[in-house]
Amino acid sequence: MPNVIIGQSGGPTAVINSSLAGAIKAAKMYGIPKVYGMHFGIEGFLKGDIIDMDDYLHDLNDLSLLKRTPAAFLGSCRYKLPEPEDNEEVYQRIFSLLEEYDIEYFLYIGGNDSMDTIKKLHDYARDHHKPQKFMGIPKTIDNDLAGTDHCPGYGSAAKFVATSMTELIADNESFGASDPRICIVEIMGRNAGWLTAASVLSDDSDCDGPDLIYCPEVPIDLDKFINKIKELIQVKKSIVIAVSEGLRTPDGKLVCELTDAYEFVDAFGHRQLSGCARYLANLVARETGIRTRAIEFSLLQRCSTHLASRADVDEAYNVGFIACEEAIRNNSGKMITLHVRSREPYVCDYQSADVHEIANVEKKLPLHWITRDGTYVSREFINYVKPLVIGTITPYYAGGIPKHMSLKYSKVRHDESEMME
Amino acid sequence: MPNVIIGQSGGPTAVINSSLAGAIKAAKMYGIPKVYGMHFGIEGFLKGDIIDMDDYLHDLNDLSLLKRTPAAFLGSCRYKLPEPEDNEEVYQRIFSLLEEYDIEYFLYIGGNDSMDTIKKLHDYARDHHKPQKFMGIPKTIDNDLAGTDHCPGYGSAAKFVATSMTELIADNESFGASDPRICIVEIMGRNAGWLTAASVLSDDSDCDGPDLIYCPEVPIDLDKFINKIKELIQVKKSIVIAVSEGLRTPDGKLVCELTDAYEFVDAFGHRQLSGCARYLANLVARETGIRTRAIEFSLLQRCSTHLASRADVDEAYNVGFIACEEAIRNNSGKMITLHVRSREPYVCDYQSADVHEIANVEKKLPLHWITRDGTYVSREFINYVKPLVIGTITPYYAGGIPKHMSLKYSKVRHDESEMME
Repeated sequence: MPNVIIGQSGGPTAVINSSLAGAIKAAKMYGIPKVYGMHFGIEGFLKGDIIDMDDYLHDLNDLSLLKRTPAAFLGSCRYKLPEPEDNEEVYQRIFSLLEEYDIEYFLYIGGNDSMDTIKKLHDYARDHHKPQKFMGIPKTIDNDLAGTDHCPGYGSAAKFVATSMTELIADNESFGASDPRICIVEIMGRNAGWLTAASVLSDDSDCDGPDLIYCPEVPIDLDKFINKIKELIQVKKSIVIAVSEGLRTPDGKLVCELTDAYEFVDAFGHRQLSGCARYLANLVARETGIRTRAIEFSLLQRCSTHLASRADVDEAYNVGFIACEEAIRNNSGKMITLHVRSREPYVCDYQSADVHEIANVEKKLPLHWITRDGTYVSREFINYVKPLVIGTITPYYAGGIPKHMSLKYSKVRHDESEMME
Repeated sequence: MPNVIIGQSGGPTAVINSSLAGAIKAAKMYGIPKVYGMHFGIEGFLKGDIIDMDDYLHDLNDLSLLKRTPAAFLGSCRYKLPEPEDNEEVYQRIFSLLEEYDIEYFLYIGGNDSMDTIKKLHDYARDHHKPQKFMGIPKTIDNDLAGTDHCPGYGSAAKFVATSMTELIADNESFGASDPRICIVEIMGRNAGWLTAASVLSDDSDCDGPDLIYCPEVPIDLDKFINKIKELIQVKKSIVIAVSEGLRTPDGKLVCELTDAYEFVDAFGHRQLSGCARYLANLVARETGIRTRAIEFSLLQRCSTHLASRADVDEAYNVGFIACEEAIRNNSGKMITLHVRSREPYVCDYQSADVHEIANVEKKLPLHWITRDGTYVSREFINYVKPLVIGTITPYYAGGIPKHMSLKYSKVRHDESEMME
């Protein structure tokens, strides 16, 4: 029986390793002799940087620990495969490595950029009559993948955002009328507001929730924004606002580009955005004279596995498992998708979709789930997201700190022989 | 039997409400008829804004929920009591309110500024032969209170910092040699490096821990800092650095003041610092050309009750309980202190110290716990902090989001009848 290889690609999520664990479990169950990992995705694979998972995983407890491990255990990459006509050598290299390691099942955990990799490899194999099967495993905190109700990774990020919002709002309310405070919280999502919208889950009997929610699907009119805050501050002394990192003004400019922050552009042309909340906080402080704070959840919203949603962990595991199973059943060029038959009670099943319909497509938050003035989200959205954050997964603690699986990295030790004084 | 009043002051912590719960429990056990709360600390109290705790707490389950509630349940303030000779009216107002409500026991949960309040009220009562007793309950994430081994609030903030560091470091390591990354994490602590130093707890067999730790006790030489990073990047492609918000250059300037961030100064003359990591990240990016990210834990490090340390929750509860008990036993002008008889096994008991020796004093991280080059902390510090982060307290979840106790705030409802499209 041939072997399987699994890769992780793009930004990590809190549950990307659950999908890895699910795929490994399926491979073992089906008696696959060797489960390989790509060290740093397809980019590492191209360099022959291949991991034998048996070196790291010895029993089922190790799989449980892997599920509780944040970030990409195998390492990730942001490498865009060239078109075969532009650089066929890359493809020849990949397929020769697959043959060398007797790998027939190629699983890739990632978002819409990563599904582009699956699509290209599947098409190349098909066109060149290669036996290998290529399956995509969905992963993104942005929830912007087409063809699936929602995406593993999103539920845990949503749970982090909602939990932290609840705690932040309580903190912001701690000071009275003599010390009003405005807090602007920046949430990930370049073009899609799914994660910013999830901040609404903090709204319950014990918490006001955010006062305003600005998703990137609707431009922000800065004058109206300031007026809205001036109205709000008349009736409450604690204001908390959720904004997407990718928010734009009506003329199409990114709010964060109104600042002078140092910027990076990755291989897919994505800019590392930051500074939207900071810009707005400075603006609000100037315009209102009220103490205003900008908070960026930054990487915490995608790596806080200690707060992962159980529903999300399980679905991530299942899509990994099923993708491996489907490859073994000779399916290829597909991504496993989630289909919610019922939201209350929550019933979700798994199908698959052609990666050609998923690669490079971004699914945005439907406009009819955003209020007409663009400052809040609807009850339908709340019903959509609620089941995705249910349940918790308890980290394995040692010394009070969650423990994780880890490939070994070079460690620089500090000289502790010489202390001050 | 006379009544008790409890107030919360200064920046909240993850366990400030555990101290409130402990004090309430003691008052109930000793048969105190009424337990009052100051709404927004002494500042609210002066306006007669007084809460009857019986309106909010009905049984022991409510106390358990209160312990799991972030931020200051009663509301807090940053109000500095004037000297009696400058404004005796304030004192007359306070003591007349205490008499009006038949309050003899005054408990105040706070840091060194709040202990100044206890000191002044105790001294005024002593000088004017008033019967009221004033007791301080220690609280600060900064751990900078004198007279106590450590301070409730610190352990939970340290646990948040260490846990988030572990997760962030894993995330930062997710990308390979072709995509090196430097992450600079800003941690609270204006003048004391206790919390920044706690990032070292992420260092274990599964995690490198931060590569460099900069506490405010030692100035940062920016040239040496850049050289250090250039050396590190030769041997590892993921670098994570912990810096205190209050870091200064050798000429005494705050690193964050090298930026143009909008700033606030509170009643105690504290500036709201932010921008140290951002300044350093921009500097590193310019000097090395490597992708660099600034992360501020910001308010999350003090409000993340979902990640509170069990040891900290229990000690916070106990100091609240004992402060109330001591007031009933006619002690006054004291703050409850923690004394660690043994760190391994951990054995801690409770004493009290004169607030005159605590008010307005800041206890810094000992210099002999910082490496000579000012870039790391010692094994002794690790031994000091380790027992403080042990154990977890499970939030009460509903719908996957932690639930909290809350005083009611005005809620602005959004019109959901009109959706886009």
